Amino acid sequence: MNRATLLIHTADRRGLLAGISGFFTERQLNILECRQYTDTRTERYFMRIEADMAGMTRTRLETEFGALAKELGLEYSVYYSGERPNMAIMVSRASHCLYDLLINIEGGALNCKVPLIVSNHPELEVVAQRFRVPFYCFPIASPEAKLEQEKQVLEIFRKHNIDLIVLARYMQILSNDFISHYPGRIINIHHAFLPAFQGGNPYERAWEYGVKMIGATAHYATAELDEGPIIEQDVERITHESTPNDLKEIGRDIERRVLTRAVRAHLEHRVITSGRRTVVFSR
Amino acid sequence: MNRATLLIHTADRRGLLAGISGFFTERQLNILECRQYTDTRTERYFMRIEADMAGMTRTRLETEFGALAKELGLEYSVYYSGERPNMAIMVSRASHCLYDLLINIEGGALNCKVPLIVSNHPELEVVAQRFRVPFYCFPIASPEAKLEQEKQVLEIFRKHNIDLIVLARYMQILSNDFISHYPGRIINIHHAFLPAFQGGNPYERAWEYGVKMIGATAHYATAELDEGPIIEQDVERITHESTPNDLKEIGRDIERRVLTRAVRAHLEHRVITSGRRTVVFSR
Amino acid sequence: MNRATLLIHTADRRGLLAGISGFFTERQLNILECRQYTDTRTERYFMRIEADMAGMTRTRLETEFGALAKELGLEYSVYYSGERPNMAIMVSRASHCLYDLLINIEGGALNCKVPLIVSNHPELEVVAQRFRVPFYCFPIASPEAKLEQEKQVLEIFRKHNIDLIVLARYMQILSNDFISHYPGRIINIHHAFLPAFQGGNPYERAWEYGVKMIGATAHYATAELDEGPIIEQDVERITHESTPNDLKEIGRDIERRVLTRAVRAHLEHRVITSGRRTVVFSR
Amino acid sequence: MNRATLLIHTADRRGLLAGISGFFTERQLNILECRQYTDTRTERYFMRIEADMAGMTRTRLETEFGALAKELGLEYSVYYSGERPNMAIMVSRASHCLYDLLINIEGGALNCKVPLIVSNHPELEVVAQRFRVPFYCFPIASPEAKLEQEKQVLEIFRKHNIDLIVLARYMQILSNDFISHYPGRIINIHHAFLPAFQGGNPYERAWEYGVKMIGATAHYATAELDEGPIIEQDVERITHESTPNDLKEIGRDIERRVLTRAVRAHLEHRVITSGRRTVVFSR
Repeated sequence: MNRATLLIHTADRRGLLAGISGFFTERQLNILECRQYTDTRTERYFMRIEADMAGMTRTRLETEFGALAKELGLEYSVYYSGERPNMAIMVSRASHCLYDLLINIEGGALNCKVPLIVSNHPELEVVAQRFRVPFYCFPIASPEAKLEQEKQVLEIFRKHNIDLIVLARYMQILSNDFISHYPGRIINIHHAFLPAFQGGNPYERAWEYGVKMIGATAHYATAELDEGPIIEQDVERITHESTPNDLKEIGRDIERRVLTRAVRAHLEHRVITSGRRTVVFSR
Repeated sequence: MNRATLLIHTADRRGLLAGISGFFTERQLNILECRQYTDTRTERYFMRIEADMAGMTRTRLETEFGALAKELGLEYSVYYSGERPNMAIMVSRASHCLYDLLINIEGGALNCKVPLIVSNHPELEVVAQRFRVPFYCFPIASPEAKLEQEKQVLEIFRKHNIDLIVLARYMQILSNDFISHYPGRIINIHHAFLPAFQGGNPYERAWEYGVKMIGATAHYATAELDEGPIIEQDVERITHESTPNDLKEIGRDIERRVLTRAVRAHLEHRVITSGRRTVVFSR
Repeated sequence: MNRATLLIHTADRRGLLAGISGFFTERQLNILECRQYTDTRTERYFMRIEADMAGMTRTRLETEFGALAKELGLEYSVYYSGERPNMAIMVSRASHCLYDLLINIEGGALNCKVPLIVSNHPELEVVAQRFRVPFYCFPIASPEAKLEQEKQVLEIFRKHNIDLIVLARYMQILSNDFISHYPGRIINIHHAFLPAFQGGNPYERAWEYGVKMIGATAHYATAELDEGPIIEQDVERITHESTPNDLKEIGRDIERRVLTRAVRAHLEHRVITSGRRTVVFSR
Repeated sequence: MNRATLLIHTADRRGLLAGISGFFTERQLNILECRQYTDTRTERYFMRIEADMAGMTRTRLETEFGALAKELGLEYSVYYSGERPNMAIMVSRASHCLYDLLINIEGGALNCKVPLIVSNHPELEVVAQRFRVPFYCFPIASPEAKLEQEKQVLEIFRKHNIDLIVLARYMQILSNDFISHYPGRIINIHHAFLPAFQGGNPYERAWEYGVKMIGATAHYATAELDEGPIIEQDVERITHESTPNDLKEIGRDIERRVLTRAVRAHLEHRVITSGRRTVVFSR
């Protein structure tokens, strides 16, 4: 089945649901799923609508819906079921998130292509090879070399038409310039339950602080470090017996599932960003 | 604000969303919330729609929506925000679920009146008195006396126009005749994660079985014991160290929150039963 | 059965377990439970040991164990099963934590007496009356009146030989002087997953920050606000649809169970503080 | 560091802790960890003790501890930190549990060798190859061929000195004869929260039953199908919207973590079976 998914947001007002759903019904397009949310604080309206495209062309849909959007003042984006976006994965030395992404792509749970994996270290090339994904190592020999390295990475991403970048435990802080090339299209996993323990060594600091649960946070990368809109979080219980090393190990399981869920929500067009909050329509 | 909430279900087909939402929009009624779900297995469509009634009377709404429902073949029920249903609570000796219901009614989280509490034991009268709710003790002296007792209970429920019966750890099995007077309007809490450990002594049996988590299940009571449609479940982790008594204690916390959540979902008109499954629209 | 519980900590070294357990065995005292933990970072050893006192007097135990403790360099405290400590509860306007404490005391899960409830507001007197606990309202008319009010509170606590103070959503910051009277004996519930959202309005701020889970933290009060050693934490999942008000409501359920668990662990002598971390031996 | 781990169980009585810990202290062996549990119902005592072997030989430990065990009537087993058991993995077509085991072995979280993977289907050979583990496919052409196939499998397990067999979604029921060769050494993952939904198609049946959470159970395989002692369980929340296919997908994540945790507990010698219950000493 050929499907179109629309992510829509606009100022809230009467008649949006009937107006938009009527658009599809008038054209005999079956609505497969429709979810909406009104943020009563900011008076913003958000909608995700998925419709069967039987008997409809993309051009016609975009022309006609574009007219409605203009009339109703809708901001929107549209995606089609046949498309498989290009996702680049950036890693350093930890393999658990990388494995989880690759296994889920192989199993069909993540709908995307991975043209390449980029790292600042050579260790994970063996993992990339196992799944036959090209692996590029761009080391950062010195802090000064960093901008140069980012240029190389950006260049190769451009060449491969990358739509989404996933930082799967990439242990470098990206420059604002780098991030500005992919607004809302870089997903990072932070190994703490944000806003607690922003920055480095969160497990070590969590142990010292004496928390009784640890967590992980997947968020869009923005110019503010560890401050971008959160897509998904999860936690696990620990005890006083858990050493900092245990936290790292328990954390690995949290990180990989939080990151994979966030990437999946993004790839299924279920996330709309609104300021520093996200609307994530559940499956 | 005056609101109407409609719970609707029907055979799935094209145009339902636009048709129903259009009904409200044409009448200038603001749709405050609209949730839908299609069970693709049974091809049934379910909707919960909440609309502002400003400028609309109940009679007019019911007449006009009734016409639409006839046309589209909708089964539906309608509720108004001013209504506070009469809820009867049945208990035996355990107080935790009763307390949780009464505290949540007092705090406003459960929107209902409690004209009376009925028990087969006298112990919990003191709790009822604290919240100034009339308490009726109808003991069951012998198995033969049970039908007679149920008759008394039914009689007093009729007198108080009871809309919903909550079995808050009422340790008697109700007869099918009793249940048939309140179809879909009796909520029971079973102290196990159904379908595991149906029937008596579930904590004892869970301990012997050696499970690593225990749970509780709130469901509508039907003729089949512990088999009615499930509204809510939850669990907690236990260890080999937890004694059967620990399970009972841990279980109390699970039972009360599961029951209160289920009663709340029912009172907020967010539950539609479909065979032995329930559709529970989240808040 | 008459039991003694000892909480012990000391520098880690060989032979502590055999030495301490041997003490009880030589005296024919059955060890009912023995838990230990070694913090390999700080090289500290922690133990909780519970023994049957049959045939042993308190004086003899304390004299003889005192000698062993001197020899082995143990810091320790000892508690007896017959003792019921005096717990004072401080509240402001929210009733959920207060109810949970009182119900659990009534049900026997919390082993303590509550000689009084203290508040800076009159609203919860009705709750205190229901459970027949004396209620004292010491309002704080102005910021200047605060020290005077604390003096009154301290005075009444002294009169009632208070062993433990529970801040059950007491919305005032206690002065360092007040806290210094009860070191390690004031338990506070903070309505956030610390160290995230320290200070005021945590639910509001959590909503604005866009977290996907909210939590609560029970900790010992120290001079640093919201920085004392954590005893217990828990969280619940929320979604973008949860309003700040929903967070408050969901939070109530987390707060009460986190606080009650922490108070219980303290009353059962299962908590040893070590710097800003706590060792909490599970039941 | 060279460590010995002892798993001990016996009838409960006075002096066991002092007696056993004294054994190590007298020999100047540092006790690294000691956990105990008394089942007051069956009056059985369970202990796990881990000691530094510095200055001690295996022979001497076993001779001398053997004498103590005889004297105290202890049943016990002893393991040494240098040993890496041989684990065989049996699979059918689903790859998620296999991947998780192999990745955790590679990462060092599971301390074992995998001399071979056995399957009744050829599909997962590609996964085995990626991790360079020999893969044997023994198909079952007909029900009659099953015993013959089991004979082949047993033969190859014997040749490789297999210590532990993990059924990582092996979709065949093993014969009692097969199981009897590895008592307490076959770990199975069942894709339901046992005892609910024993047998085939649990996700399908869970959907039809309308449960609000699904789970997975890792247990030792015994002659009774899906009835062996449970090592670990976990669950996740689902909603009415989750299709049977969604349950399978959500379930995959539960299954792999439950199985890996159970295998890890077994490999770390933290599990003692007691009738149909297990004592699992936490890390």
